[in-house]
Formats: sequence, structure tokens, C-alpha cells
Amino acid sequence: MDKLAMTEAIMAKKAEKGLTWEGIANEIGCSPVWLTSACLGMNSASAEKAAAIAEYLELSCEVAEALTAFPTKVWDQVVPTDPLVYRLYEIMGVYGGTLKEVIQEKFGDGIMSAIDFTMEVDKVEDPKGDRVVLTMSGKFLPYKSW
Amino acid sequence: MDKLAMTEAIMAKKAEKGLTWEGIANEIGCSPVWLTSACLGMNSASAEKAAAIAEYLELSCEVAEALTAFPTKVWDQVVPTDPLVYRLYEIMGVYGGTLKEVIQEKFGDGIMSAIDFTMEVDKVEDPKGDRVVLTMSGKFLPYKSW
Amino acid sequence: MDKLAMTEAIMAKKAEKGLTWEGIANEIGCSPVWLTSACLGMNSASAEKAAAIAEYLELSCEVAEALTAFPTKVWDQVVPTDPLVYRLYEIMGVYGGTLKEVIQEKFGDGIMSAIDFTMEVDKVEDPKGDRVVLTMSGKFLPYKSW
Amino acid sequence: MDKLAMTEAIMAKKAEKGLTWEGIANEIGCSPVWLTSACLGMNSASAEKAAAIAEYLELSCEVAEALTAFPTKVWDQVVPTDPLVYRLYEIMGVYGGTLKEVIQEKFGDGIMSAIDFTMEVDKVEDPKGDRVVLTMSGKFLPYKSW
Amino acid sequence: MDKLAMTEAIMAKKAEKGLTWEGIANEIGCSPVWLTSACLGMNSASAEKAAAIAEYLELSCEVAEALTAFPTKVWDQVVPTDPLVYRLYEIMGVYGGTLKEVIQEKFGDGIMSAIDFTMEVDKVEDPKGDRVVLTMSGKFLPYKSW
Amino acid sequence: MDKLAMTEAIMAKKAEKGLTWEGIANEIGCSPVWLTSACLGMNSASAEKAAAIAEYLELSCEVAEALTAFPTKVWDQVVPTDPLVYRLYEIMGVYGGTLKEVIQEKFGDGIMSAIDFTMEVDKVEDPKGDRVVLTMSGKFLPYKSW
Amino acid sequence: MDKLAMTEAIMAKKAEKGLTWEGIANEIGCSPVWLTSACLGMNSASAEKAAAIAEYLELSCEVAEALTAFPTKVWDQVVPTDPLVYRLYEIMGVYGGTLKEVIQEKFGDGIMSAIDFTMEVDKVEDPKGDRVVLTMSGKFLPYKSW
Amino acid sequence: MDKLAMTEAIMAKKAEKGLTWEGIANEIGCSPVWLTSACLGMNSASAEKAAAIAEYLELSCEVAEALTAFPTKVWDQVVPTDPLVYRLYEIMGVYGGTLKEVIQEKFGDGIMSAIDFTMEVDKVEDPKGDRVVLTMSGKFLPYKSW
Amino acid sequence: MDKLAMTEAIMAKKAEKGLTWEGIANEIGCSPVWLTSACLGMNSASAEKAAAIAEYLELSCEVAEALTAFPTKVWDQVVPTDPLVYRLYEIMGVYGGTLKEVIQEKFGDGIMSAIDFTMEVDKVEDPKGDRVVLTMSGKFLPYKSW
Amino acid sequence: MDKLAMTEAIMAKKAEKGLTWEGIANEIGCSPVWLTSACLGMNSASAEKAAAIAEYLELSCEVAEALTAFPTKVWDQVVPTDPLVYRLYEIMGVYGGTLKEVIQEKFGDGIMSAIDFTMEVDKVEDPKGDRVVLTMSGKFLPYKSW
Repeated sequence: MDKLAMTEAIMAKKAEKGLTWEGIANEIGCSPVWLTSACLGMNSASAEKAAAIAEYLELSCEVAEALTAFPTKVWDQVVPTDPLVYRLYEIMGVYGGTLKEVIQEKFGDGIMSAIDFTMEVDKVEDPKGDRVVLTMSGKFLPYKSW
Repeated sequence: MDKLAMTEAIMAKKAEKGLTWEGIANEIGCSPVWLTSACLGMNSASAEKAAAIAEYLELSCEVAEALTAFPTKVWDQVVPTDPLVYRLYEIMGVYGGTLKEVIQEKFGDGIMSAIDFTMEVDKVEDPKGDRVVLTMSGKFLPYKSW
Repeated sequence: MDKLAMTEAIMAKKAEKGLTWEGIANEIGCSPVWLTSACLGMNSASAEKAAAIAEYLELSCEVAEALTAFPTKVWDQVVPTDPLVYRLYEIMGVYGGTLKEVIQEKFGDGIMSAIDFTMEVDKVEDPKGDRVVLTMSGKFLPYKSW
Repeated sequence: MDKLAMTEAIMAKKAEKGLTWEGIANEIGCSPVWLTSACLGMNSASAEKAAAIAEYLELSCEVAEALTAFPTKVWDQVVPTDPLVYRLYEIMGVYGGTLKEVIQEKFGDGIMSAIDFTMEVDKVEDPKGDRVVLTMSGKFLPYKSW
Repeated sequence: MDKLAMTEAIMAKKAEKGLTWEGIANEIGCSPVWLTSACLGMNSASAEKAAAIAEYLELSCEVAEALTAFPTKVWDQVVPTDPLVYRLYEIMGVYGGTLKEVIQEKFGDGIMSAIDFTMEVDKVEDPKGDRVVLTMSGKFLPYKSW
Repeated sequence: MDKLAMTEAIMAKKAEKGLTWEGIANEIGCSPVWLTSACLGMNSASAEKAAAIAEYLELSCEVAEALTAFPTKVWDQVVPTDPLVYRLYEIMGVYGGTLKEVIQEKFGDGIMSAIDFTMEVDKVEDPKGDRVVLTMSGKFLPYKSW
Repeated sequence: MDKLAMTEAIMAKKAEKGLTWEGIANEIGCSPVWLTSACLGMNSASAEKAAAIAEYLELSCEVAEALTAFPTKVWDQVVPTDPLVYRLYEIMGVYGGTLKEVIQEKFGDGIMSAIDFTMEVDKVEDPKGDRVVLTMSGKFLPYKSW
Repeated sequence: MDKLAMTEAIMAKKAEKGLTWEGIANEIGCSPVWLTSACLGMNSASAEKAAAIAEYLELSCEVAEALTAFPTKVWDQVVPTDPLVYRLYEIMGVYGGTLKEVIQEKFGDGIMSAIDFTMEVDKVEDPKGDRVVLTMSGKFLPYKSW
Repeated sequence: MDKLAMTEAIMAKKAEKGLTWEGIANEIGCSPVWLTSACLGMNSASAEKAAAIAEYLELSCEVAEALTAFPTKVWDQVVPTDPLVYRLYEIMGVYGGTLKEVIQEKFGDGIMSAIDFTMEVDKVEDPKGDRVVLTMSGKFLPYKSW
Repeated sequence: MDKLAMTEAIMAKKAEKGLTWEGIANEIGCSPVWLTSACLGMNSASAEKAAAIAEYLELSCEVAEALTAFPTKVWDQVVPTDPLVYRLYEIMGVYGGTLKEVIQEKFGDGIMSAIDFTMEVDKVEDPKGDRVVLTMSGKFLPYKSW
């Protein structure tokens, strides 16, 4: 079973059971963001986590196995068209130079890792309109000379 | 004075005085991320903020005026090459679909605004390596039918 | 049922019954533009509207369910080739800078939302050739400092 | 004097005199959108309109002459990055197929001209946030067989 | 029946009957260029013309119906690779600026319509090698101020 | 003197003297289209023609020499943005497959040369709107086996 | 039978019979390069040549017919990735300007035809490593004025 | 002196003295193609060859030095627009797969080197039109396992 | 059997038997990198090596035959998105100019062959985090004049 | 002094003194690859190393200061054209999937860092042709769940 079939099986079962990513994540004991990325085939799960997900969703062990496979991460659109995703691209374009200035002022020459990385999504209620709060945490990796 | 010349003037004065974005922002009373983006020409400042920035840096009122101009936001590289900025692009590619699932599960059909938007950068010390923490807050905008 | 199959089912039934978008919209009580975009899979409908559309067209509740799904908005052609759509692209290219000047003169620094947005199409008869009138209304979103 | 120098001269004088596009257009007797596009070098003016613009702004007849030149319309960014202009591009992508359906249902096979074309920008005040209203009017051009 | 299946049905029948585009066009009473473009799915036919084409080719009324559908005009290759079509692209590149000068000298600021447009192909015999003669006729559309 | 400087010199003198491409071409005894392409640097002129052009325009022999240089033909925009030139690109996209069918039906497998090629522009008056008529004549080049 | 199926049939039969392009070409009496291009669907064969190829390979007359069809020449990769083909692209990039200088010095303003064109591949043995020798012969086509 | 200035100096002197690439090459004792590529900055010359070229052209030793620099080979156009160079690109597209078949049939799995490579241009007179003959010789490099 | 089916057959059998690339390579007597590239269809194997691989994996002789076919090397993504592969692209971008300087300083004008080329991957344990060591060895190919 | 001017100053002085990257690196006590990348503006140097480089080259302290600035890493060509750099791109394309398999077999799901990274270039003499040996060492970064 490849990642595509795995994702379809998970999405179908999740809809059928009326579950949410948040609900599944709480049950499994992990972050909803990481859980979703693993179920969409963009991260691999450990054997234990994969088994727990498949068991909770009452899916076969082929699904569990597919969850442990190391994914090849591919996105087709160089510039994303979906408005929600495009806004992230816009933030990168508008604030990329700013983040470079501010991060390197605080940490020195280096980058924020996208591998040793976690992210959370929160909802903050606000009378003027609720707000999406994204919190990203990545290890700082300094450049080194040799 | 256009935004380019404005940025150069600010960068030169900041280096000469040995200031940091964080220091200037504290002095002016605003976020370092917003301040940097305005000084790099990617946001406009109110007349008062612009005057305060120019005064603190001992720069001319042409700089203050240029800070208030509404910028045309342009980035040249469709896919950024600088490693720090590319990692943000990679996060958008790897986690874009995940964020769509998680945000829309919490909020319904809509997007996170990149206009009614704030961002902060924090340094979290960690014995295994310090971490960069980015916190983005954008108003949720629901799609509407008509 | 995914959005593609939903659109095909709606188009086939609409042709079979000899209906128009305008006629369906009047029946449902919504704008023809919004209705068409929902039926083409570019917007989601509320459960009530979706049920009304499916019922009026005598289509299954799978179609109604598919109408409520939150779409991933994708277009394949970076520059559209169809002449009708290209003309819109050309308007954006020729008048983009002009609209930036005129909108920001009236409203200040910010954008016209494409999310909190409605659009109508009207036909204005004219002896020298009828005219297409597009009316777009988008909420103004001001940039903010923080 | 080429269009670039012409635009710079007009922008400088407009700022110096504290004028608005709307004010100049009222004075000249034309639409602010058309006026702005001509001053940005994306449309040509008749000799009379060009003279009136130059006179009102107290600019040389070289500027008037440059306003009458037929422009070569060029935009550099296939996908615009400025958020205000990008939203127009997004509207074309999301609603392009919808407009094709709705316009051709009303008019038959053909297009909306971008040449025999006018556009207005209005501000509609709204307690939930003011709205930008764009009204575009283009002659319908039917395809013909031969 | 979509345009693709329609074209395949027409091409197969045309080959089976040993017909030419020119022969069919003469029979129907239209231009071979227009006829071919309609049969390749790049133009729509009136109900009468569509019926005549289907009848002459002894094809079903589904084909006639497909011929009347309003096409979405799509081409995949931004720069065409087929040598015959590339030469047209090269002519546009080499002579585009020239045509702009010469057409606008004769007609004023405006364009040649590609919608109100006809084209013919002729063969001119020549002892040094026969020549292809393309004659394009498009309505001149002047830009207008407003 | 390179082609760019040559074109500028010719354009300036042509404007100063109030000449037209058609008028110069009649004087020199050549086609206005060819003349314009040579003056825009997209074709080379024979020594005699170049001398005649320079003499008639009262320009230096450096201009004549530059007219005889073999040009490197470059266009920057893969898809042209200027509306007049884009319409030619659209014609190539919409009618490219049609022209391949019709030309190869008349001539066999081969192409229309863009090198052994001439083109004319005519104005045909029409009460419903004047028409631009482009006539292109290119030698047919058959493919050969070997 | 389309060109794709034709190529597959020819490749399968060639492998089954253990033939080489050179061997087939000698049998048919043509160049191996031309023969291969026709069998790969990038050139059309005369009825006689097509029949001879099909007969020698013991393939059906559908294959012969497909060999005579006029191909639409398409390549997908703007920059080829296969190392053997990329080296040809690199030669065009590195030596394109040089060839323009040297060919036009010898022949005047014009091009080498890629239509009236033949090519051979030879193997030249060399103790330091055998060499591939490509010989291309294309008719010179001079630009003409008109 | 960089390669650009070197090429300009050589071109100017060559024009002034009325020399040809072929004539200079015969004088220096090398191939006109290689000589031209070195003078256009796409190959480096040995110190002796560089000195000989500079001396024959009566140019400074800065030119000789620039000729010996190792070039960074850059071409701007992914698909060349100049018709002469485009035809080479077309040959690569149309015949690339053919050359792969024929070369690998003769030599096994590997490529023709574009580094250990020579090329000549010849003129073959022909009453039906003179022909350009390009002869390329590249060392065959076999793939190896390890 | 084409390369795609071959790779699938090998991957399935490798997973079923619980083998590693390193284990298979040791058994066959070759490098794990080369073995993997051949099994992924990016290199061809000699008849002996192919037979040994198929035999060891208990796969059919069609697999062995497919391993000996000369591959057409294609990659779809001009800029790879998978983070592991992107890092190699980034190294090429950041260090490409540096490698040109350092290699040409050591060897003269020329390149490192990617054909006469071997590569190994090693794991070096390190208390601060294990390291991936890639060792590439390519024959230096000097440019030559002629 | 920006990085561009810094690189020019270093290159000029290095040429004038007849130094090599290897020689400077030995003098400073660092790797020639790192030293070259810092001098080309693709890495930053510590204050001590920067001072040592400037002093050894007898360059101003502005150069030393520029060496310590954190670079924005930009490369213009998405696919490099220079043959030496292209070969690295080709290796990434041909062997990218292979490296993913082999590295992840040895280390688990993760990547080789391009930040915590060193590289060396060696020359290995070989009677069949000297070989370039590139040795890259990057820290393995495992993906983590959260």
C-alpha cells in the first residue's frame, strides 16, 4: 500500500466515524499538526504510533506499515494557488528578508531547521474576528567554518 | 527618496550607531518584526511612527516620509535560494495541506489573513541547541456565499 | 464523491433539464455567480443551500455532501489561454498598478479582499454592441502595524 | 521624453501640489481610473486631454506629448507579488471558469473586450468594514464563423 | 460527448471516406480554416452548420451537439515545439514590434481583434518553390478613454 | 553604432521630420513591413538600401552601416504582454493545429518558411469597423528523407 | 494506429528479431538516422518506404500507414535531462553564438535549415577513446528583403 | 580586463582591419570555430595561442591575458530566440531520441563528450542552394559500474 | 518489461525478503550506490551483474534483461522538493562557484565527469550527531583547443 | 563595502600576488573550499579569520568587515549552464533518488545537513586521467514527531 492509498483509506474512515484530527491526536497522544502531516503522507510515524493510529481507526496493518514508510516529499505547484496556502507563500515573500534580519540578529549566521521542527495551530477568540495562531519552533543551526 | 534609498540610509545609520532592530523597536514602542519590515520597505509606517524612527536614528524627514509611503511589495525569486528563507518555503510545501486541514477543521472554510497579521520571533534556549520560535497571528476570514 | 464527479453530475443534469445558472440561482435564492462557482467546485455551500441545489436538480445527497466540502482551489495555467479568461488576466496586468494607486488613494494602505468578496455579471444592451458589466465588491483590509 | 520619465514627472508634481487622482480627473473631466492609467503609461491620451493634464499640473509640453504616445504595455511579473494586485490574479484563477459559464450563458460564445473597456473604483462605507467596489464594463465580442 | 471524442470521431470518418477539409468546407459552404478549427474543437458551430457537418460525414447528432458547445481554448505548450507552429511563434517574436508600429501608424492606438477574425490559407505555385499564403483579417479595435 | 542606437536615431529623426514608415518605404522602394523591421533591428539591409534609408533620413553613414549588420534576433517575453502582440500569440495558440492540418493537406509534410518570407499590412475600410488585413507569404519547405 | 503504438510495435519486433537500426536501414536503402527518426515518430515516410519497413519487419499495414502520417513533433522537456541529449543542448548553448558568426561569415545573413536537412552518425576508432562523429547538412536559407 | 571587454576589443579591431574568423584562424594555425569561441569568451586559449591572437590583431597583452582566463559559460535564453540558433535547438528536440538510439547502438551505454570535442563548419556549393555542413566530433564516454 | 515495472518488482521482493541495498551489493560484489541506481533504473548493468542481481532476488530473467537496458535518464522536478534531495541542490547553488575556482586551480580549465564517475555513502559516528559522508570521484576532463 | 566589491578586491589582489586559494588557506589555517566560499561571498568569516585574510592579502579592514557580514545566498540560474556546475546538477538529478534510498537505509528518516557541512576537493593522479574527488560531510538530521 502506497502513501496515496493510505491517505484515502484514513480520510474515508475519519469521515465515516465523524472524527477530527484533534480528536485522533488526543487519543494517540501527539500533536494534531504532526498527526495530520503523517496521515497526509508528508511524515513517517514510528512503528508504535503507526499501530496506534491504525488500531484507533480500525484500519488494516497495511495502513500502519504505510505510515512508517519514509516519504518522498513532493509538491506540484511552485507557487500554490489555494488561497489558504498562498497566504503562507505571501508571508514568506513579504517577511522573508525581515525574518533573516531578526533571526540572525538574535542567533548569528545560520538558519531555523525545517527538520528538527514542530508546529502548532491555535484558535484565539476575538470579538473583532477569531484569529489563527501558528507557532513554529525550529532548532537554530549555525553555519560553521572548517 | 524611494524605499531603496531609505533602507540603505537606515542600514548605514544602524550599523554606524551599533543598534539592533530589537533595540530600536523597544525605543519606538513596536514589534521588532514590524519595525524591520517597515525599514526594509515591506510595510508603511504611520506619520508618528515614521517620525519617531527617523528622529531616533537622527535621519532626515525624507526618510520619515519614505517610511510612510505605501509599498509595492515585490520579491524576485519565485523559489527563494537563501537557505534561511528557503526553509520557510519548504515548510509551506510540506505542511501546506496539513495546515489547510487543521485550520479549516477548527474554523470552517476560509483563510488566515496575511494582512490583518502579526508575527514575532523568539529565542528559546535549549541545551540541545537553541530554538527559533515564530509566532504568527492572522485574522480568520471565512468564505461567504452571496 | 469528489468535486470533479459532483460537477459532472450537475452539468449533465443541468443540460438534460435545459436549465440555466441564472434560473437555478433564482430558484435557490442566491447569486448566479456564487452558485456557478460552488457547482464548479470553487466554493463550498452551506448544508441548507447544498440540499436545496441537489433537490432542485433531483440529484443524490452525495452531490449535496460534495457541495459542502471545503475545496482546494487549483488552477493549472499560470497564464490562462482561454481568450475570455485571458482578458481578465490582461486587465490585471494593464490596470494592476492603476488600481493600486486609486484604491489606496481612497482607502489607505491595504487590499481588497478576495475572500470577503462578491461578484455579479450583468448584460447592458447597447446599439453599438451589448456590454458585459462585472461588479466586484471586496472588503477593504487595512495593513496594520504591531 | 519616454513614458517612464513622464510618469516620474507627473508623480513628483502631484505629490508637490498635494493633488489626488480623483481631483485631477474631476478637473480634466474624465474617470480617475483612466487618468491614472494614462499617467502611469498604460494608455494614450488624446492631444486635448494630454494638453489639459499637462497644463493643470504645470508641466512641459514634452509631458503632454509623451501622454499621447501609444504605449507598449509590459508587465514583468507573470504572477504579481504585490498583495493588492495578486488578489485580482486570484479572482481570475478562482472565478475564471465561473465567469466563462455565466457570461456565455447570457451572451453566447464570445468574450468581454479588454480594449473597448471602462472601469470604475468606488468606496462603499459599511460598519463591518468599508468595501471596494470595482465595476468593469467591456463590449461583448461574439465569435463568428466564416 | 466532449470535444475530444468529437474530434476523434470526425478525424476517423474523414480518413475512412478519404475526404479533405477543403472538400467538406465546400460542401458545407464555409471556409476550410474555420471548418477545421471547429472540428478540432477550437470554435463552436451554429446549430445549422453543426447539423450539416454531421450529416455530410454521416455522424451522430451527439457530434453535431458537441460542435455547438462553446469551447474552452487550451494549448499546453507555452512555446510550441512542432516546427510548422513554431515558425508562427517566431514570426510573432521577430515581427511583433514591427506590426505594432505599422498597424498603429495606419489605424491609431488599438489592436487587431482575434475574435472578430477570419483567416484563409492559399497555395501559390512558384517555380522556385510553392508558397503558403496566410491572409488574416481582424477588426481594428481602438482604445478608448472614459 | 549598435542596432539599439541605430533604432533610436531613426525613430528620433522620423518623429522630427513627421515621416511615416509607409512614406519612407515608398521613397526607398520597399515594403513598409520590411523597412520597419530593418529599422527596428530585426532584419539587415543591403548596402544600397541602407545607404538610401540613411540618406533620405539625413542620418550618418554609421546608421547605414548598422542597418547592414546581421542582427541577433532576441525577444524577451516568452508570452508577449502587449495586447496587440498577444493577439498574434493567441492566434498561433488557437489556430496552430488548424493551420498544420490545412497547410499539410494542401502541400504535404513540411512547413511555411519564416525566412523566405514576406508580410504586408493593409487597412480595409468597413462601416462596421475597419479591418486589419495581414498577408503572409512563406515558401513551403517539404521534409525530405535521406 | 497512432505513432506511439507504431513505435512500440516496431521496437518490440526489432528486439525480437535482434535487428539493428543500421541493419534495417541498409536493407531498406536509407540512412539509419532518418530511419530511426521515422520509426520513433519524428518524421513521415513515403508510402513505398513505409511499406518496405513494415514488410521487412513483418508488421501489419497499419504500421505502414502510421509511418506515412505527418507527425506533430513534440518534446516535453524544455531543457533535456538525459545526459546524452543534454550534451547537444550544451553544445547549442556554448557554441550557438560561434556558429552564428562562422556560418554568417561564410554565407551572409540567413540560417541553416532544419527541414531540408540530413544527419549521419559515425564511429571513428581512436586508441585514446573512440569518437562519435555527427555530420549535419542543412540548406542555407538567406533572409530576403521585400 | 574581463571577457566582455576582451570580445568588444577583438570585434572592433577585426572590423577595423576587415579580417575574417577564417583568416585569423589560418594565420594562428587553429580551427575557425575554436578561435571564434575563444574570442567570444566561451573557451580559454593557451598562453601561446592567446599571445599570437593578440599580436596578430595588434591588441594589448591585457587581451591576451583575458583570452587565457577560464570562462564561466553562461547563456541567458533557455530556449534561444535567434532563428539560426533556434534551428540547432529544434534539431536537438526532433532528433535527440534518434541520436540516443543510433549512438548507443554503435557504442553501448554512454554519451558523446561536449568537452573533448571539436566542430567544423563547411560550405558545400549546390545548384539547388548551398549547404551548411557541421561536423562534430566528441569522444565517446562509456558509463561504468563500480 | 520496462524500467518502471523492473523497479517495482525489485522493491517488492527486497521488502518481502527484508534485504538492504548494502546487503545485496555485498552479495553481488559492487557498490551499494551503483546497485541502487541500477535498480532504480538510472544506470544499466552488464549481463553478468544483471543475472546475478535477478538470481539473488529470485526474480525472472525479464528483470535481468530490463536491468541491462540503456536508460533514458529523466527527472521531473527542475528544483527538487524532497528535503534530502533539495539539500544537494542547495550545495550546488551555494558552492558551485567555489568548486569551479578550486577544481580549476588544481586541474586547469575543464570539468569533473559525471559519466566516468563513482560515489560512495558512509556513516561516520559522532557524539554530536552522526555524519553522512559522500565521496564522489569523477575523471577530470580538460577542455582542448583544435 | 558590500560582498561584491569585497570579492573583486580579493580576486584582484590574489591575481596580483600570484596566490592560490590553497596557499592562502594553508596560511590562514582553514580549508581551501571554505576560504573560497567566504571570499566569493557565500559564507561569513569570524572576526579573527576575516582579519587574518585581510592582513595576509594586505587589504583594508573594510574587506575584513565585509567578510564577517552574514550573506544572503543567491544564485540566478535555476539550472546552471556552466558545464562544471551543471555536472553537479546532473549528479543530483541522476543520483538523488539513489542517495535518498542509501542514506535513509543507513540512518533512518531524515536528511544530510547543508549547514552543518564541510567539503574538500582532492586531486588523485591516475594514468588513465587524473580524478577529482569531492568529499562532503553533513550532519544527519532525523525527522522527529511531536
